[in-house]
Amino acid sequence: MDPTELWQRYQAWLYYHEGLGLYLDISRMRFDEAFVAQMQPKFAQAFQAMADLEGGAIANPDENRMVGHYWLRTPELAPTPEMQTEITTTLDAIDAFVAKVHRGEIQPPNAPKFTDVLSIGIGGSALGPQFVSEALAPDFPPLTLHFLDNTDPAGFDRVLNRLKDRLSTTLVITISKSGGTPETRNGMLEVQHLYQTLGLNFAKHAIAITTGGSKLDQVAQSEGWLATFPMYDWVGGRTSELSAVGLLPAALQGVDIRAMLKGANIMDSATRQAELKNNPAALLALAWYFAGNGKGEKDMVVLPYKDSLLLFSRYLQQLVMESLGKQYDLDGNLVCQGLAVYGNKGTTDQHAYVQQLREGVPNFFITFIEVLKDRRQGSIEVEPNVTSGDYLCGLLQGTRKAIYDNDRDSITVTVPEVTAEIVGALIALYERAVGLYGFLVNVNSYHQPGVEAGKKAAAEVLELQRALLTVLSQDKTPMPLMDLAIRANAANDVETVYKIVRHLAANDRGVKLQGDLARPNSLLVSMA
Amino acid sequence: MDPTELWQRYQAWLYYHEGLGLYLDISRMRFDEAFVAQMQPKFAQAFQAMADLEGGAIANPDENRMVGHYWLRTPELAPTPEMQTEITTTLDAIDAFVAKVHRGEIQPPNAPKFTDVLSIGIGGSALGPQFVSEALAPDFPPLTLHFLDNTDPAGFDRVLNRLKDRLSTTLVITISKSGGTPETRNGMLEVQHLYQTLGLNFAKHAIAITTGGSKLDQVAQSEGWLATFPMYDWVGGRTSELSAVGLLPAALQGVDIRAMLKGANIMDSATRQAELKNNPAALLALAWYFAGNGKGEKDMVVLPYKDSLLLFSRYLQQLVMESLGKQYDLDGNLVCQGLAVYGNKGTTDQHAYVQQLREGVPNFFITFIEVLKDRRQGSIEVEPNVTSGDYLCGLLQGTRKAIYDNDRDSITVTVPEVTAEIVGALIALYERAVGLYGFLVNVNSYHQPGVEAGKKAAAEVLELQRALLTVLSQDKTPMPLMDLAIRANAANDVETVYKIVRHLAANDRGVKLQGDLARPNSLLVSMA
Repeated sequence: MDPTELWQRYQAWLYYHEGLGLYLDISRMRFDEAFVAQMQPKFAQAFQAMADLEGGAIANPDENRMVGHYWLRTPELAPTPEMQTEITTTLDAIDAFVAKVHRGEIQPPNAPKFTDVLSIGIGGSALGPQFVSEALAPDFPPLTLHFLDNTDPAGFDRVLNRLKDRLSTTLVITISKSGGTPETRNGMLEVQHLYQTLGLNFAKHAIAITTGGSKLDQVAQSEGWLATFPMYDWVGGRTSELSAVGLLPAALQGVDIRAMLKGANIMDSATRQAELKNNPAALLALAWYFAGNGKGEKDMVVLPYKDSLLLFSRYLQQLVMESLGKQYDLDGNLVCQGLAVYGNKGTTDQHAYVQQLREGVPNFFITFIEVLKDRRQGSIEVEPNVTSGDYLCGLLQGTRKAIYDNDRDSITVTVPEVTAEIVGALIALYERAVGLYGFLVNVNSYHQPGVEAGKKAAAEVLELQRALLTVLSQDKTPMPLMDLAIRANAANDVETVYKIVRHLAANDRGVKLQGDLARPNSLLVSMA
Repeated sequence: MDPTELWQRYQAWLYYHEGLGLYLDISRMRFDEAFVAQMQPKFAQAFQAMADLEGGAIANPDENRMVGHYWLRTPELAPTPEMQTEITTTLDAIDAFVAKVHRGEIQPPNAPKFTDVLSIGIGGSALGPQFVSEALAPDFPPLTLHFLDNTDPAGFDRVLNRLKDRLSTTLVITISKSGGTPETRNGMLEVQHLYQTLGLNFAKHAIAITTGGSKLDQVAQSEGWLATFPMYDWVGGRTSELSAVGLLPAALQGVDIRAMLKGANIMDSATRQAELKNNPAALLALAWYFAGNGKGEKDMVVLPYKDSLLLFSRYLQQLVMESLGKQYDLDGNLVCQGLAVYGNKGTTDQHAYVQQLREGVPNFFITFIEVLKDRRQGSIEVEPNVTSGDYLCGLLQGTRKAIYDNDRDSITVTVPEVTAEIVGALIALYERAVGLYGFLVNVNSYHQPGVEAGKKAAAEVLELQRALLTVLSQDKTPMPLMDLAIRANAANDVETVYKIVRHLAANDRGVKLQGDLARPNSLLVSMA
């Protein structure tokens, strides 16, 4: 395409939202008008399905749930007055609670103010709060946020050790919809144990964010925790950033959560437009569909040219991949759908893997995220008439051009600045794009059956571990792996038996391995 | 494959290194004996090429350089006595310098000791040090490490603002092989400017790591910086972690760098074995080749089940993708090679995108990294006979099984603990695997022509910016984009002109845009 045509194409497809100052450019995706025409009927269906969803249709049939994260920022759209009230009441409760913490009216037992927040949660209960914290927290926040987002004992120890002197002024938020997520439960138990060891009253530091009546809610009530905020049945983990899950930690850090909600609300309005060219979420979905042939044949590489947006791609990994990565479509056909997402930030990644993006396997498209405003104050010149920010801008344009010239496609999202409003808008933009794309490819974007499979397999491993420990404690004679497996009714799973005892032996749990470690079959297992 | 066969296969392919206590398992890659037989001659060639490389052959023909990162940990293998001496002398100099800093013999002008280190570098000058810092730094290191790894003004501001009160006790390391990397140069200039503003003597805080005689070296010499450590012509950025680039920041944080070198040295010996089954790097290369058909057809998802290894995948992104992502092979054929890498950590990622990995697009294989030792001390039980670490182990096994049962392949690397020795060994393992794989697919793993293309394109953008500013300052009449472009001799690049003025206008640089922002062609540009 010659430069004049390309410039025409750029302008023809440029989306601009005046209120947000946000641009979306899909001109560097090489689709043609025939493709767009062919997609129009699919989009008409998707827009209708999305309208039904927002109207309260059961969009998550196998879990029999409504999907209503949009209502969080436009409560008046929620299908019942009770839900509307619940949303606004929770928001007010968060504001009131946070104000009291900031003023020291809610305070730790032995100090005037809380200084830190420890957030315990995983998946949707961590990725959104982490992204928002990195993007928006002030340099010196009123409370500093830390995360336990795994069940790694050494990971727990590192965070808790570094916090050591401030645990007495730390608020601990445990976030779990059901209260049954093992990683989160484990983190909570370890923290609770540490507080006991230190003679601190855990309940006076503890907050729960969970569904009313869950196991976690019951614990919080019975132990008299400081506060509990609700999670809703109709908000999935990966779209919960604008519920209490994301808003409470953000507000405690001094982030303007009303502005986040406002940005999302504005973007929701913009992405309700049932006209492709005027709907930025639909344009994204169109571009994704084109890139991967509606089958996820290309990875989405997300490159924000702004340090504070580093975690956006990790946030999107969950939002996009967990929503779209499905084995069966809604008609039960085997489809193995999805859209792989990765990326960190530009220009940094140009010095890491853009070599491959430019020259190597053409199995991706890039989403550049450009932020127009460089910094709050003015810049020094690093060369005559050139600033550090000009370099950032130039390197983005240069890379976009270099990869296009080498037949690699890209999308560019341009925002004026990284504000709470813009972050809210970006979240809403991608939530809607994923929802529309899900309808285009006919998958249920709102469940995650594969996550359960992993949990179930892990529970079986732990069940087997218990059985092995029982066998080993009853018979102290060193025995080969296969004998041990047979006696634990796991003859078909010697490898798992081996893995379990190898792990136990490494952790002073009384299990001993004798023999040649290089040859598992030579090993004898016993309790010390 | 029935369980018995699978267990046999597991044992048949299990690699174990006794000295390191490291296991590698490629049994869950579904290759067969015929594939292995077919690969044997390719491996024979690759082993020979690697031996030549280590012997000092010019392995980077278009840059006429030797490739010698292996010599960093086995100086006696370096091809000349001068090089051997240079390596050991540098190591001793790092040790001596760091000891003096730790003891306060090298100290800031107005305080007894340095407290922080600010490392300015990008790509290979940041990814290794960041990975190692996260993996190995003690909870309370003697000096705390911070990074400027981009040219983002707001990113600079955040790091420098948070460091504000401690800049007077901060060591600033500028890392750039040529001294000409713009991002690093910009960061250095901004920091230098800030020190001047604060009345601090920058030179008394500054260290350079660069090639002797580079622009940066000249600045350091002429300004009398605290110290300079060398980068070698024969060590590429992405394999520089075990040169001064990685060792100095690590040692300052209290990491045992001799142990890192020792681990790498041990792994180098192990991966020099010219026999596939006894060489863990060759086994990795075999598995990668099988997974992607020797063409990078599947992404490598790296999942360490240990928080401290979070940045390993980002480190590997560069090492693998920049090395292998090449347009042409060594015979000049268009190949578009590569191997895409992404991942964060398990179990966390199980709650993010393992849904897609288990059920969705089968365009990947996983590398699980298991760490046997849970933590330094013992663990509480979160359920009878079950610890947080048992969950971590169980979730890894469960996920490995769940994805295998759904026809997705995986590799598992098992290490006893995250120690300096093991981190050194992992680095060496993957360096060698990448090198061998590069030989298998016949690409030059040691250059990065595509990175230059991006830089060149960016330089053109900045050149155009200068031209635009000249035009606009000479004629204050508001003019349409096309007129401006023509007058700056960029009629074929109106879009870039638009992007540049849009960025300048957003940053109070005197440029004004009038008209409808949604329609670039309607805009009039002028200097205010």
